[in-house]
Amino acid sequence: MSTDDVAVMTTDDAWRLLDGCVFGRLGVSVHDDPDIFPVNVHVDASARTILLRTAEGTKLSSLAVNERVVFETDAFTSRVGWSVIAKGRARVLVGTDEILRADQAPLQPWIPTLKTQYVEITVDRISGRRFAIGPEPERIVS
Amino acid sequence: MSTDDVAVMTTDDAWRLLDGCVFGRLGVSVHDDPDIFPVNVHVDASARTILLRTAEGTKLSSLAVNERVVFETDAFTSRVGWSVIAKGRARVLVGTDEILRADQAPLQPWIPTLKTQYVEITVDRISGRRFAIGPEPERIVS
Repeated sequence: MSTDDVAVMTTDDAWRLLDGCVFGRLGVSVHDDPDIFPVNVHVDASARTILLRTAEGTKLSSLAVNERVVFETDAFTSRVGWSVIAKGRARVLVGTDEILRADQAPLQPWIPTLKTQYVEITVDRISGRRFAIGPEPERIVS
Repeated sequence: MSTDDVAVMTTDDAWRLLDGCVFGRLGVSVHDDPDIFPVNVHVDASARTILLRTAEGTKLSSLAVNERVVFETDAFTSRVGWSVIAKGRARVLVGTDEILRADQAPLQPWIPTLKTQYVEITVDRISGRRFAIGPEPERIVS
């Protein structure tokens, strides 16, 4: 893979892009059966956390079995794109104080339903890549 | 969760949306450590398969350990959105005939690098949801 076409971001750059992000995809896995959910988030780059809100359901039941999660967000035009991947551990907020703090976060729900459970991901690994989009070089047929 | 705000698609509708899709996210998991990769795809709805091309690397090494994968694609405006999730088993194409067939697929590489390995996902489960986006109903503080 040519590094002219894919540029690995610094961790700071990846956090900067993640910091403005309000929407992405949560990847979870139960017994190595991976699943993805579109989610709204609030990112706190200084605390290295990603907050999301969810109703009871598959997402929460996955977290009870396996707290390892991955969050992905990306943006692209027809010419350039980027993707940031943040991995970490998720937990459901249960303390009154932390729930009240989470209530203050500018967390836009993607859908107007009542979602009373907060999940906070503590990020321990982040990576990001920028892409230049174009035709593939000719493959040599051997 | 109110069904006015989230509408579950029929399987046919989900395939119809997936069929036109050229870009999405591949979710994999190794030892319950989930990961997500942005990928270009070619969907063959009649064969119930999703084709992607990849260089040697993390995606391929994950598949060698665990063939269960999930593919997600979505689209949204400020008012409405949809998301389709397809789950299945992935395998690297190794036969000359199937590789030559894959070479004919209109598979746009997202990035102009040389990627000589094809991965085909045989979908065994698909689901899709449509969302109306708006403010959350007032939460009752008990």
